Amino acid sequence: MSSPENTEWLDSLQWNEQGLIPAIAQDKDSNDVLMMAWMNREALALTAKSGEAVYWSRSRGKLWHKGESSGHTQVVADIRTDCDADVVLLKVSQKGGIACHTGRYSCFFRKLRDFSWFDSEPVLKHPGEIYPGKESL
Amino acid sequence: MSSPENTEWLDSLQWNEQGLIPAIAQDKDSNDVLMMAWMNREALALTAKSGEAVYWSRSRGKLWHKGESSGHTQVVADIRTDCDADVVLLKVSQKGGIACHTGRYSCFFRKLRDFSWFDSEPVLKHPGEIYPGKESL
Repeated sequence: MSSPENTEWLDSLQWNEQGLIPAIAQDKDSNDVLMMAWMNREALALTAKSGEAVYWSRSRGKLWHKGESSGHTQVVADIRTDCDADVVLLKVSQKGGIACHTGRYSCFFRKLRDFSWFDSEPVLKHPGEIYPGKESL
Repeated sequence: MSSPENTEWLDSLQWNEQGLIPAIAQDKDSNDVLMMAWMNREALALTAKSGEAVYWSRSRGKLWHKGESSGHTQVVADIRTDCDADVVLLKVSQKGGIACHTGRYSCFFRKLRDFSWFDSEPVLKHPGEIYPGKESL
């Protein structure tokens, strides 16, 4: 058994040239895929230690504790990696039942039909209510 | 309704600087995540038209019709993208019940426990039987 200070488990992953790894978040009960984001070493270490999903926001260039503005945190039940150790999979309990900044359960709400994308999931909460301080997203 | 010749649905996706997009394959029945690989425009167009998953192999630098060597093809039931249109999610029927080149059902068989990775899924078929022409993987 190793301790949180051991970084071998982090060293063994394949980080890309920006030091990032894709992280898929999956609902631990329904198994639905909620989102995919990116993590750097610090984000993954924090996720494993704190038990809540922390990503690396590429657009903002900083750590992103998921739910820090919305309250829609993700409690992590399970962390996996794949055969190539270049992707991380989190099984999470999604607080508020909303993972997407558009107010939907999952970010994967756009479905291909007849070679066009269609929205296929309802908005459960208007983004204006989720992020009251922001005029727009 | 648009035709397979229409490329607007491809143009609307966010391809990275290498012209690729991450593609998650999920079992359409169990909802388990089987693998994540990458696609270029041609791979995704072929996937949508043929109904079988085609990826871009970054290591081999060519199109990769999943299952071309192993027979473990993926019949695509559903194609989705996310709010940012920078990830694709496929719901698939996994032929042979094995997605991973190690002979396991899912590529995500390595689980984090006490800050170490442990194999958590059985090998269903030895890779030597899946790829009989190859001495090693």
